[in-house]
Amino acid sequence: MPADAEPRGPSVFKIPEGDNRERLVCPDCGFIYYDNPRIVTGAVCLWEDQVLLCRRDIEPRRNYWTLPAGYLELGETTEAGAVREAWEEARARIAIEALLGVYNVPRISQVQLIYRARLLSLDIGPGPESLEVRLFSWEAIPWGELAFPSVRWALDHFQQTRHLSEFAPRSNPPGASDRLEGEGL
Amino acid sequence: MPADAEPRGPSVFKIPEGDNRERLVCPDCGFIYYDNPRIVTGAVCLWEDQVLLCRRDIEPRRNYWTLPAGYLELGETTEAGAVREAWEEARARIAIEALLGVYNVPRISQVQLIYRARLLSLDIGPGPESLEVRLFSWEAIPWGELAFPSVRWALDHFQQTRHLSEFAPRSNPPGASDRLEGEGL
Repeated sequence: MPADAEPRGPSVFKIPEGDNRERLVCPDCGFIYYDNPRIVTGAVCLWEDQVLLCRRDIEPRRNYWTLPAGYLELGETTEAGAVREAWEEARARIAIEALLGVYNVPRISQVQLIYRARLLSLDIGPGPESLEVRLFSWEAIPWGELAFPSVRWALDHFQQTRHLSEFAPRSNPPGASDRLEGEGL
Repeated sequence: MPADAEPRGPSVFKIPEGDNRERLVCPDCGFIYYDNPRIVTGAVCLWEDQVLLCRRDIEPRRNYWTLPAGYLELGETTEAGAVREAWEEARARIAIEALLGVYNVPRISQVQLIYRARLLSLDIGPGPESLEVRLFSWEAIPWGELAFPSVRWALDHFQQTRHLSEFAPRSNPPGASDRLEGEGL
């Protein structure tokens, strides 16, 4: 790439040899970009009867409340990823108990695996992507200030299954939108 | 890229601005390659008391038996992906019943979601990636010719849960290797 050029990256759609779908190919370097859905892993973390939420310090939905969750990294299991995200976002040490939900958000090619976990100590605090972390009793959860519909789904499913030790993980509620109210098409 | 050059693609490791991990960057076009774990979706498909297996016509493990399963595509739900793979690999129409297993293979950055499904008709046949597709009674399953350890895990977990309508999906068996016997490091 000439030193003064803007990077272009994969920007041409074509079907690579031996494939049956169009993929993004780079006109500069020839690289084929096999773009795949991404896995988000996270947890509803419980201390006594309170759940851990983080107020986001990043876009989208800065200032809104979310579960500690994020993209799975290469070489990581989904359980290890949920433990890492709880540490990165809330400085929380947790123990995974059960798979709570598998949520599909095909509009943004995302599959979310959300676990139920126990908080191992009260020693928590905001990581670099959080403004604030707090424990909420069920009644005190800021329902109107949740960052994403799937955060509400996971909390609802947590409440439905909290007294069960073995259960089928929930999936997207029938008919529920994965969009926030007022969010554009 | 000069017409006679070999494509290089992302081949230099560096930490992009605002990130905290090294990512592969292309020295030709400047593209940052955020490589993420991939999702495999598939199903144990049942007709009466027989399960559907496909003999692979592609590497790795050509000639060995596998479940209809493959990479989730962009914009697809995991259930829709399992239905699509059953069609592509076995020309099978299926109905998803339950999430059977979530298997982590971090060595190759793969998360497998394997469902239990019902075969909707006996009208099956090999797709382009299969040499042969067949229904096997439990006793007739070619245990010594399965393509991957996770195929055996899913079949074992299917057998353990086949009479349950609601159950927690299984994960990697404790201590089980995700490698085939004799496979190198």
